[in-house]
Amino acid sequence: MLMDDMGWGDLGVLGQPSKETPNLDAMAAQGMLFPNFYTANPLCSPSRAALLTGRLPVRNGFYTTNGHARNAYTPQEIVGGISKDEMLLPQIMKKKGYVSKIVGKWHLGHRPQYLPLKNGFDEWFGAPDCHFGPYNSSIRPNIPVYNNSEMLGRYYEEFKIDRKTGESNLTRMYLLEGVDFIRRQTEAQRPFFLYWAPDATHAPVYASKPFLGKSQRGRYGDAVMELDYSVGHILLWLKRLGIENDTFVFFTSDNGAALMSGPNEGKHYKLIPTCTQSFSLRVTGSNGPFLCGKETTFEGGMREPAIAWWPGHIKAGTVNFQLASVMDLFPTSLALAGLSPPDDRALDGLDLTPVLLNHPHKQGNRPIFYYRGNELMAVRIGQYKAHYWTWSNSLEEFNKGINFCPGEEVPGVTTHDQKEHTLQPILFHLGRDPGEKFPISVSSHEYQKVLSSISPVVEQHKSTLVPGVPQLNMCDMAVMNWAPTGCEKLGKCLNVPKSQPWKCDWPH
Amino acid sequence: MLMDDMGWGDLGVLGQPSKETPNLDAMAAQGMLFPNFYTANPLCSPSRAALLTGRLPVRNGFYTTNGHARNAYTPQEIVGGISKDEMLLPQIMKKKGYVSKIVGKWHLGHRPQYLPLKNGFDEWFGAPDCHFGPYNSSIRPNIPVYNNSEMLGRYYEEFKIDRKTGESNLTRMYLLEGVDFIRRQTEAQRPFFLYWAPDATHAPVYASKPFLGKSQRGRYGDAVMELDYSVGHILLWLKRLGIENDTFVFFTSDNGAALMSGPNEGKHYKLIPTCTQSFSLRVTGSNGPFLCGKETTFEGGMREPAIAWWPGHIKAGTVNFQLASVMDLFPTSLALAGLSPPDDRALDGLDLTPVLLNHPHKQGNRPIFYYRGNELMAVRIGQYKAHYWTWSNSLEEFNKGINFCPGEEVPGVTTHDQKEHTLQPILFHLGRDPGEKFPISVSSHEYQKVLSSISPVVEQHKSTLVPGVPQLNMCDMAVMNWAPTGCEKLGKCLNVPKSQPWKCDWPH
Repeated sequence: MLMDDMGWGDLGVLGQPSKETPNLDAMAAQGMLFPNFYTANPLCSPSRAALLTGRLPVRNGFYTTNGHARNAYTPQEIVGGISKDEMLLPQIMKKKGYVSKIVGKWHLGHRPQYLPLKNGFDEWFGAPDCHFGPYNSSIRPNIPVYNNSEMLGRYYEEFKIDRKTGESNLTRMYLLEGVDFIRRQTEAQRPFFLYWAPDATHAPVYASKPFLGKSQRGRYGDAVMELDYSVGHILLWLKRLGIENDTFVFFTSDNGAALMSGPNEGKHYKLIPTCTQSFSLRVTGSNGPFLCGKETTFEGGMREPAIAWWPGHIKAGTVNFQLASVMDLFPTSLALAGLSPPDDRALDGLDLTPVLLNHPHKQGNRPIFYYRGNELMAVRIGQYKAHYWTWSNSLEEFNKGINFCPGEEVPGVTTHDQKEHTLQPILFHLGRDPGEKFPISVSSHEYQKVLSSISPVVEQHKSTLVPGVPQLNMCDMAVMNWAPTGCEKLGKCLNVPKSQPWKCDWPH
Repeated sequence: MLMDDMGWGDLGVLGQPSKETPNLDAMAAQGMLFPNFYTANPLCSPSRAALLTGRLPVRNGFYTTNGHARNAYTPQEIVGGISKDEMLLPQIMKKKGYVSKIVGKWHLGHRPQYLPLKNGFDEWFGAPDCHFGPYNSSIRPNIPVYNNSEMLGRYYEEFKIDRKTGESNLTRMYLLEGVDFIRRQTEAQRPFFLYWAPDATHAPVYASKPFLGKSQRGRYGDAVMELDYSVGHILLWLKRLGIENDTFVFFTSDNGAALMSGPNEGKHYKLIPTCTQSFSLRVTGSNGPFLCGKETTFEGGMREPAIAWWPGHIKAGTVNFQLASVMDLFPTSLALAGLSPPDDRALDGLDLTPVLLNHPHKQGNRPIFYYRGNELMAVRIGQYKAHYWTWSNSLEEFNKGINFCPGEEVPGVTTHDQKEHTLQPILFHLGRDPGEKFPISVSSHEYQKVLSSISPVVEQHKSTLVPGVPQLNMCDMAVMNWAPTGCEKLGKCLNVPKSQPWKCDWPH
């Protein structure tokens, strides 16, 4: 279960003051909570590619070289997508007879060859990109919603999202699609892999009518409440079907909550909406006590809520401080299915099964690497995090009101230029200082000692890293979803403009 | 159970990432959690005076008029203390035969007439002031530790606190004193009131040996772990004694966590230590997602962790969003004891028993007033908070490295001058924006509507408020604890210097 832009601090069990996630809190009480769980990138597409490949985006190609340390993703006009050379989780699971479905947001490329059913999934209900819009389809089409390999309609057309009221039934549809899949596979006694990826907490935030106005937190909270309800409902169905002891469930989010906003409430951005931008100042998730949010390599951008649930196997009510990553779900899922990960490529994920099952052997002091595009910005080992580069966003953007760290400013840390600290990394102890506010003095014994243990790990990582071919360099209006498969039947094909590719511009 | 400088976000159940408070989390799971609980002042003495009188410090005299909107407390040289005109909780409880003990920090005045046994308590083990020091006793004496009305010794002398290692057995002693009192009263079948007020999380932070180095959070976390253990141990004793269904327990803290520190780790303040200053940059509590901390009237300064526990009466695992205050504990405790609060004075606390017992009648939309010294800085009604004055600390102090909002800066909100907004208050919706980062636009319909409902409440409050005689205006070296009662027996009397009173200087 992968949420979209939901923050670490959005869960009651992780300190959201309104405590409106009873089902997720119960899931944690029945399972294992990972307070030190990380995504592989502070942005959606690379994070999702990392989950499904077990590899850092810089390896699987979900990054750009058009600019230094730029976050890139798959907007409508992206040419690239998930490479055929990558092995995706459902492709390998198939070897043991697993049937796989993705419900919700794909975001690994929207051209036909990149879609889920060409990449190991047996079923899909959802959309390739973010639910931005509505668009004037002579300029750019609304995003299609697919059922398997054919479009069913488009956002804002057949799949309504009321931007004014925030009403949409999409989460409800995703819930029903997920439950239906689980029921069908259970009845057929087939092993299954469900990748449930709703996007209601990504701007523009939405919820269905029964949840609208119910939260103390405004519309964002309404969306969280519906997602929480849906998670609870799925777990309930696993119990009803009697498969809860045979089903491993993991809940997390793709990146930190989007905090982007300026101080003037009510002013909406006039920029062309992209997956990196949030729209309303009232729509803000929480990254708890962590610094900044989405787009950044501070904790608020990359530390994620994470709960593992597997009654009868995972000890109820456990809190596990293992440093873990969304990429671990790749080898972990394979291990649970009795499969081995591919041995012909570098993997960044670790098998968490010993940790989940509380075996004495744990995955020790593994590093967490914080990338932004093609640059290793920071590394965490144990409680220590060393920043080799710092950047929030450019002063130019900041002055336009785009702020990834609203209300927060740590001098020399939340910098508005890309600042290199390779020779003298900025060091934090995340146990004492989870908010990354008090850099450890470079003249201290602690600094010297810690750096001398981190540096070799970083050198080793950098010297052996073979970057993949960057997939997020080229854009082209012609590749947008003008006429997806199935459009003929629906009479919804649009004219494809002439191909005029250009280098994508990634400002952050 | 009143903690000292412990922050809202220091509890696992409220989102501290290290989740090191299993006993408090269990207390919440067995009791009622109040995420919207407030202290009456962002500083220790006034907050404690408010708890014991049920009245705002501006009424009970725990404020100063030496400067506008200044936080004041009872340092060693304060002349004043709790007025004889105030009625304290234990004084009234006595009418129903309650035996009362305070264990730990008093902080309502240290001159003989102000001490606990002169103000309704039957027993006391602890100290009148903060555990600062050690001092050269020719300049200022170390703080005495009392057993009832006689000193037993002094901090750093008979009661060791190792400033270097952080080791001290004080929390252990406070635990044993508390348990011993509970056992004695239970055996004698006497109703009792225990005010358990340890100070281990106030700088200089300390813990006993078994807890030192055990936390992921450094020494502050060690102290929290020992306090958590002690709370669990006290609850365990209530169960062992079979009185858990007859004992109402409330846990909270006196003000937000002290975040004071500069960006240069390892640099300690050279200023004369006072109760308002923290010493080591590694010693930092957490206010969760809230803005700033101790000393300020932002949420981080005044929102407190709060748990009510009363098995068999309070429904286990409840989260109650009632806006509540430490002053409510005064009428609530009286109601539980079958007593009425005094009717000859204005009370700010409300009886929470209907809320605790989940009766349909709740204490509705009561306001929370945020004072700093003699000034009403802000008001919360429902989810809305209006700031009439903003101030973090002076630019002069800030430039010296004293920062009440490290890493945080909300333009126009965390101001370094005392900024008045009476004509156009800064308005936040704390549900959508608990971090007070996005002021609601003054031109919005919402702003106009909300202000028109808040303004009459504020006018009513201000026009009817009768301030008490300020107790915290005068200081004098002669009133320090040079020769407390009992010093003769111990041979520990010091010479009292000549009285030369002066107006206290309150910089914040």
